[in-house]
Amino acid sequence: MMDQSYLLDILNQVAESKMDPREAVEKLKDLPFQDLGFANIDQHRNIRTGCSETIYCAGKTPEQVAAIVEKMKENNSRILCTRASQEVYEKVREAAPEAVYHPVARLIVIKQNEDVVSEKTIAVVTAGTSDMPVAEEAAITAEFMGNRVDRIYDVGVAGIHRLFARLDRIRSANVVIAVAGMEGALASVIGGLVDKPVIAVPTSVGYGASFGGLSALLTMLNSCSAGIAVVNIDNGYGAGYLASKINQL
Amino acid sequence: MMDQSYLLDILNQVAESKMDPREAVEKLKDLPFQDLGFANIDQHRNIRTGCSETIYCAGKTPEQVAAIVEKMKENNSRILCTRASQEVYEKVREAAPEAVYHPVARLIVIKQNEDVVSEKTIAVVTAGTSDMPVAEEAAITAEFMGNRVDRIYDVGVAGIHRLFARLDRIRSANVVIAVAGMEGALASVIGGLVDKPVIAVPTSVGYGASFGGLSALLTMLNSCSAGIAVVNIDNGYGAGYLASKINQL
Amino acid sequence: MMDQSYLLDILNQVAESKMDPREAVEKLKDLPFQDLGFANIDQHRNIRTGCSETIYCAGKTPEQVAAIVEKMKENNSRILCTRASQEVYEKVREAAPEAVYHPVARLIVIKQNEDVVSEKTIAVVTAGTSDMPVAEEAAITAEFMGNRVDRIYDVGVAGIHRLFARLDRIRSANVVIAVAGMEGALASVIGGLVDKPVIAVPTSVGYGASFGGLSALLTMLNSCSAGIAVVNIDNGYGAGYLASKINQL
Amino acid sequence: MMDQSYLLDILNQVAESKMDPREAVEKLKDLPFQDLGFANIDQHRNIRTGCSETIYCAGKTPEQVAAIVEKMKENNSRILCTRASQEVYEKVREAAPEAVYHPVARLIVIKQNEDVVSEKTIAVVTAGTSDMPVAEEAAITAEFMGNRVDRIYDVGVAGIHRLFARLDRIRSANVVIAVAGMEGALASVIGGLVDKPVIAVPTSVGYGASFGGLSALLTMLNSCSAGIAVVNIDNGYGAGYLASKINQL
Amino acid sequence: MMDQSYLLDILNQVAESKMDPREAVEKLKDLPFQDLGFANIDQHRNIRTGCSETIYCAGKTPEQVAAIVEKMKENNSRILCTRASQEVYEKVREAAPEAVYHPVARLIVIKQNEDVVSEKTIAVVTAGTSDMPVAEEAAITAEFMGNRVDRIYDVGVAGIHRLFARLDRIRSANVVIAVAGMEGALASVIGGLVDKPVIAVPTSVGYGASFGGLSALLTMLNSCSAGIAVVNIDNGYGAGYLASKINQL
Amino acid sequence: MMDQSYLLDILNQVAESKMDPREAVEKLKDLPFQDLGFANIDQHRNIRTGCSETIYCAGKTPEQVAAIVEKMKENNSRILCTRASQEVYEKVREAAPEAVYHPVARLIVIKQNEDVVSEKTIAVVTAGTSDMPVAEEAAITAEFMGNRVDRIYDVGVAGIHRLFARLDRIRSANVVIAVAGMEGALASVIGGLVDKPVIAVPTSVGYGASFGGLSALLTMLNSCSAGIAVVNIDNGYGAGYLASKINQL
Amino acid sequence: MMDQSYLLDILNQVAESKMDPREAVEKLKDLPFQDLGFANIDQHRNIRTGCSETIYCAGKTPEQVAAIVEKMKENNSRILCTRASQEVYEKVREAAPEAVYHPVARLIVIKQNEDVVSEKTIAVVTAGTSDMPVAEEAAITAEFMGNRVDRIYDVGVAGIHRLFARLDRIRSANVVIAVAGMEGALASVIGGLVDKPVIAVPTSVGYGASFGGLSALLTMLNSCSAGIAVVNIDNGYGAGYLASKINQL
Amino acid sequence: MMDQSYLLDILNQVAESKMDPREAVEKLKDLPFQDLGFANIDQHRNIRTGCSETIYCAGKTPEQVAAIVEKMKENNSRILCTRASQEVYEKVREAAPEAVYHPVARLIVIKQNEDVVSEKTIAVVTAGTSDMPVAEEAAITAEFMGNRVDRIYDVGVAGIHRLFARLDRIRSANVVIAVAGMEGALASVIGGLVDKPVIAVPTSVGYGASFGGLSALLTMLNSCSAGIAVVNIDNGYGAGYLASKINQL
Repeated sequence: MMDQSYLLDILNQVAESKMDPREAVEKLKDLPFQDLGFANIDQHRNIRTGCSETIYCAGKTPEQVAAIVEKMKENNSRILCTRASQEVYEKVREAAPEAVYHPVARLIVIKQNEDVVSEKTIAVVTAGTSDMPVAEEAAITAEFMGNRVDRIYDVGVAGIHRLFARLDRIRSANVVIAVAGMEGALASVIGGLVDKPVIAVPTSVGYGASFGGLSALLTMLNSCSAGIAVVNIDNGYGAGYLASKINQL
Repeated sequence: MMDQSYLLDILNQVAESKMDPREAVEKLKDLPFQDLGFANIDQHRNIRTGCSETIYCAGKTPEQVAAIVEKMKENNSRILCTRASQEVYEKVREAAPEAVYHPVARLIVIKQNEDVVSEKTIAVVTAGTSDMPVAEEAAITAEFMGNRVDRIYDVGVAGIHRLFARLDRIRSANVVIAVAGMEGALASVIGGLVDKPVIAVPTSVGYGASFGGLSALLTMLNSCSAGIAVVNIDNGYGAGYLASKINQL
Repeated sequence: MMDQSYLLDILNQVAESKMDPREAVEKLKDLPFQDLGFANIDQHRNIRTGCSETIYCAGKTPEQVAAIVEKMKENNSRILCTRASQEVYEKVREAAPEAVYHPVARLIVIKQNEDVVSEKTIAVVTAGTSDMPVAEEAAITAEFMGNRVDRIYDVGVAGIHRLFARLDRIRSANVVIAVAGMEGALASVIGGLVDKPVIAVPTSVGYGASFGGLSALLTMLNSCSAGIAVVNIDNGYGAGYLASKINQL
Repeated sequence: MMDQSYLLDILNQVAESKMDPREAVEKLKDLPFQDLGFANIDQHRNIRTGCSETIYCAGKTPEQVAAIVEKMKENNSRILCTRASQEVYEKVREAAPEAVYHPVARLIVIKQNEDVVSEKTIAVVTAGTSDMPVAEEAAITAEFMGNRVDRIYDVGVAGIHRLFARLDRIRSANVVIAVAGMEGALASVIGGLVDKPVIAVPTSVGYGASFGGLSALLTMLNSCSAGIAVVNIDNGYGAGYLASKINQL
Repeated sequence: MMDQSYLLDILNQVAESKMDPREAVEKLKDLPFQDLGFANIDQHRNIRTGCSETIYCAGKTPEQVAAIVEKMKENNSRILCTRASQEVYEKVREAAPEAVYHPVARLIVIKQNEDVVSEKTIAVVTAGTSDMPVAEEAAITAEFMGNRVDRIYDVGVAGIHRLFARLDRIRSANVVIAVAGMEGALASVIGGLVDKPVIAVPTSVGYGASFGGLSALLTMLNSCSAGIAVVNIDNGYGAGYLASKINQL
Repeated sequence: MMDQSYLLDILNQVAESKMDPREAVEKLKDLPFQDLGFANIDQHRNIRTGCSETIYCAGKTPEQVAAIVEKMKENNSRILCTRASQEVYEKVREAAPEAVYHPVARLIVIKQNEDVVSEKTIAVVTAGTSDMPVAEEAAITAEFMGNRVDRIYDVGVAGIHRLFARLDRIRSANVVIAVAGMEGALASVIGGLVDKPVIAVPTSVGYGASFGGLSALLTMLNSCSAGIAVVNIDNGYGAGYLASKINQL
Repeated sequence: MMDQSYLLDILNQVAESKMDPREAVEKLKDLPFQDLGFANIDQHRNIRTGCSETIYCAGKTPEQVAAIVEKMKENNSRILCTRASQEVYEKVREAAPEAVYHPVARLIVIKQNEDVVSEKTIAVVTAGTSDMPVAEEAAITAEFMGNRVDRIYDVGVAGIHRLFARLDRIRSANVVIAVAGMEGALASVIGGLVDKPVIAVPTSVGYGASFGGLSALLTMLNSCSAGIAVVNIDNGYGAGYLASKINQL
Repeated sequence: MMDQSYLLDILNQVAESKMDPREAVEKLKDLPFQDLGFANIDQHRNIRTGCSETIYCAGKTPEQVAAIVEKMKENNSRILCTRASQEVYEKVREAAPEAVYHPVARLIVIKQNEDVVSEKTIAVVTAGTSDMPVAEEAAITAEFMGNRVDRIYDVGVAGIHRLFARLDRIRSANVVIAVAGMEGALASVIGGLVDKPVIAVPTSVGYGASFGGLSALLTMLNSCSAGIAVVNIDNGYGAGYLASKINQL
């Protein structure tokens, strides 16, 4: 039902008496995923949503992550682990020696895709240097999914000429990811200057009344520039994933 | 500077001594907008961001809106007024008799674009009937910008088979707008089922601990399905605008 | 898939060549609901979740509610409309003359079930007189679903002997619904005194730092008495529905 | 007064002149609990609410917990300690060598009840692997109280076919506990698919705008699926206790 | 149990065989209150807490308030109705022609106590003129309960010499009620200058980031001057009641 | 004590035996203000803080405002009433026929100062037309206090070239007031471009997650541009007053 | 001015030419406090507010606290240090060997007052064992100020008969301090049962939606029992200080 | 455009054919800043806003800060690093041996300006000793920018005579910075006593319902004393910077 060609195939087999109806019901329950007890790996995801499943490591033990990676490797050529600590990486490397760790972005990349799927560029722009970890998470995620990425960092609105000096590069991108903490005004300014979709990522950079990123989040949601897509605070992965989806339409 | 061809043109004239440098400085201040005293109409916007300026009517008097419309009509063939009351419409109609009012969506559309720019469809999906005003604002905005729209209403997750029955139509769209109030779970479920960008619009439908749409907003920002773009609560216009930008890449 | 006997039936027909596979796919989309354009009536709900669908009237026009009622009457003998204004009722009465309106609870009841499904009682207890509208919404919903209800009102903890005097009646119930605004302490006290499930309903009764019911909501969620189920602020309907589900296990 | 048979008994003795009135007043103060100075053990609780008292360890020293356990063992055959650290367990084990520690759930179980009180099953369902600690707290609590538990983990709505594949097991349960962090949509989807009471437990799993579980909490309170009981964030114990109460009606 | 002399009396009757034990149990349920169906009047309150019950009118119909007043008059010589609208008063006057209405304080006073119970004064101090309704609610409540009240209004800290000029009067009071909205600094300043208990009442006077009185509430709770008692926002009644309790120790 | 020359004068009189010590104590209580019962007019304010007292009308009856105006006129040549409704104005005009009402700014100005105290300009800049009421409150307040004001409206960052075109005027001001609702990014952008103090005024313009101006408030407090002074939401008066204080240093 | 006898004395000296007016002005600045550079010790406080100054240790270095203690000892026989760590105590002991440390309450008491000022008792009641640190802070503070204290711990409403069994002792107190975390219902229940002032102290005991004590704070502010004074979360010191003020009226 | 003289110069060169138009476009992109990859140093800032750029160290590695310092030293004689840890300082000292570290204020000052730009004083006033780190950040920042600073610490409103004793010094300042945590009433009291601009800095000093400085922030924003400028919680740097801007007008 989720995947009609799959369902149609089963129904066809039933129609051609190649499959018993009761067996078909059982089959439908066996949509491709694997149960590790504590985790159900969604092997079907790539077909369904166009992206392989990503492992969110926070709240999982290194052992659990490694076990999931090991099982996923059977069916996937590309695996991404987010919010991964060095400790998780040590354990994953045992199961997947080809794994590469990006400590700033806290990402583990397994079997990086060599082929660039889209020639169009995704620009990742930050307001400050402190926003880099989130920006790198977005950039590497987008690259992992086969996109070209142009990094433009530390061009916040307090010195707006730095932004204007990069406007050519930002405007030539197909999708723009704007990463900013504190008051997050960068997204609004970019939104008023480019004619491409802008994905705004609030970061928890700031103090006091930034309330862990709430200030930047509200700024971006209330932007006077229309056409800005907002993701969760510090959610570089989500921004990179969304940008990739848009870039590969 | 915002628009380099424009700047280059001025500089060329200066270089060719067709324009005095001081005059050029003045010129650069005259980037195309018009000052009505209380409003600066951004005639240049269409060139810069690919969309004509929209008039946000809340907080403006009917007279102010009508005056802006009148001025904009000199340079624009298409004008959109959002959050427009019947009272505003009455005044605008005097300045623009061709204006059409959509009361549910609270939109005034002037000189609707006949040409569809993109053949690809934007699906607008709602959880409930009460979400219709926001959904219509999104749908009419997207149509105004030259997109085909497929409306799929009242398919919330409480009766999830209603959603699955429409999955074909949702999946065949190029961009999906998911509109939901209360707990806003619709966006997450759709995000896990389609391989296209999903724009989530939280609505203020609900009561008690929905806190005017905060509940649905947080749900959508924290979605376990990656690749979901969130806009402000009840911001149908922003969702339609963003969907159009993505659809016309 | 949602309803396996239904699916099995279709599959059987396909297996017996009584149905074409493609037709089956179409069929599966036709799970029983009806599309009114603005609303999809979930005729299948009663079978799936044991309760007929309820119409949430807030945000719907009287005309929309009446149209939904009219369509639902074809397949349902019992219909409940919540958050219904007098104005909605006037319109619904045209489509369903047998409709009864409860103005305090803002409920419209159509074809009240005469049969009591369960002999066990649900006690609805309130802290104050001002909590009555929410309590009545809960009580009438539970009665609508075939339960016996015992109403015990205005026994808040400020005069706790009033509560103790009713303890016999509260203890003899099978499920207890505790409705309270302000600080909502009633639920905790009852939770420590009875051995049956307690459903706590915070109300928006109060002022100042009650923040529209937030105070009572937090009180109930943090109750030191274990085994308390909380529903949304002012959600009498949800409490009555849940109590009925539990009472009819 | 809390317990009328107890009161009646005292009154009868007074009536039969077996007890002096003043002594009776004193007696009534001696309802069965024991004062350790820093804690009053509620020995009467089992009779009054059907459940033995549980020790909430957070904020108590290991020595205090051990002293309470020692005293409770005189009258209770079954004791449960929640939010217990390894350090607390070491101390408790000295007073109760038969104590078993569940580190993931942070529970200490003393004299596990061998007899299953109810044959009906409680399903504990989680959205992700990271929700396991809370789910285990719920499951072990329910088992401790004599219920059968079916654990179904990592079936969140991002890959909804994983949930549907388990629907049979979920539907065959008498009560369902849905444990989810992030946006918590799992509870709404399950609520629309089963005809049994659903207890929703928001977890603090997530980041950014999940605000320590607030997002999932609001989602669950505002669920468009009626009949969902919500407990406090991360309150696995409360969910298991409530499920047991319902399951043993 | 709530009232031991009452209980002792019943027990004595049982001991002397003047009362049957079962009748005693029934008796204990009949602690003095009267059930109007929608309200339980707590006739016993005066004895138990030293104050007659007050009727909180918000959320009650004028008819309900009038019925409660009528019943209470049978046992009470003094009745206070808070948050009473003019409409409620009109209805109450029918049942109690001697009722006096204070529109600024929204209080109805029935059978004002002529006797002053305490000679010691309660000072009611406000920061601004806009705080008067809350201050009057406090002052009239305190007078109703037999206290002398000294009103000192509009002496906020923006012109602090106005406060110092009244310091003699404030210091000669036995209890001080400080009523302030906006930033609520008045309570802290008074708290540092007097050696008597200060009751701080935050008001909802203000705009913007006063968030309906939250700002003043937090100010008062966090006061650097120790010994300040805070009540709910706009809760003049509670402050007057508490001041009376303290004043009559 | 607040005003040492005043104190010294009294002490001198005492020293010269022109005044009795006890009389001096009384005198010190009579610092210049006048008690109307409900209001204490601070006649001394102009000397102490350099500004005449302003009447905040919200929460006061028209009669109270008029009475205060009448009394203040005895000692003040200039009076400002803020948050004044048309109804208040009608009453004030009876006491002060020379009063002028500014309905957009909701200000009543009595005896406008003809003399401009400072030749330096205060620029009042708004993001949108809807911010005008707050901006006018700031501008007229500053003019009332003897400053030159340059109004620059509707130059928000969504069309940032409109702002740059006015940069000359903004930069030539001595103090800049930036008024913006929605995401409030205007203040940060201006703060990065000018070398003068910037006073940021968040407005409640916006919807959804603007939460009544909270979004713009947080943006401005967290600005990455240093040297920005923030006042309360919609507090045009406070901004104008502060700008005047700075402009007249 | 703060202290009129002090002022009168100075004025008398001036009147009698024993003091020069200018010298008097200087004198008035020398109201009794001592400047340590980083701290101004308020030696005058005892006379003014009836309590000696207390040292709030959080945010001060051990060296700073010790220096303040040393200076205060010159004029005070009794000193109290709150929120004091063991580390602070070590340093203070060097300056004041007679200092006694209460680790649970985090209080340092110097020269404990032997004399009990009031014979009337303050009851300190807690809901749970985990509330003990806050309760002890209140109790020791009250004892430090010369009051008799009756500690009644772990009598929360989940087992309400434990509370009733202690009702005699609670009712015989002159002031009651109710300390509770989680949902904080204890204060409301006590408030309805006693005729003495109740001071409610919310504690940060709890988890999830207790939001660091916010839940208990709101409960207490919104109590349906009138006459409850609330202090800040975990503010045992403030409660003890306030109770002492009331107890010694 | 940001800097018109710069633009005019380029245009003049183009007009005089000393520069090619295309080269001019490139030139305009090269407004003076330097790209370190992770940071863009804004060398132009001093000219544009009158202040050299400051390095916000939080979220940057010691290596990044040192690299920025090294590059900035080429064009700046004065550099300020805020929120700098001891660890950052160790690294910076390698690049700039003349750097001085202020551990309480967490500031690194490089090449302290010897010349005092303004003879007028900035008063930095704190409520308590615990507010010193924020106050020192403000004071040293102001001194760094060439201002005289008068520090007046620990004069909070709980002992208001301490404040009055310093009133002379506070009043003689040209700008006042009021630093306070807890309830933050200091700013309002000072605002009512001085005729100079007051910059209010809320600090996170406090506990419980101070919510990390939110209480003091709201107090200051809602001050009943007009003319108070508020900066972010704990933002001593911003206050010092703003005070300097005002002081040097």
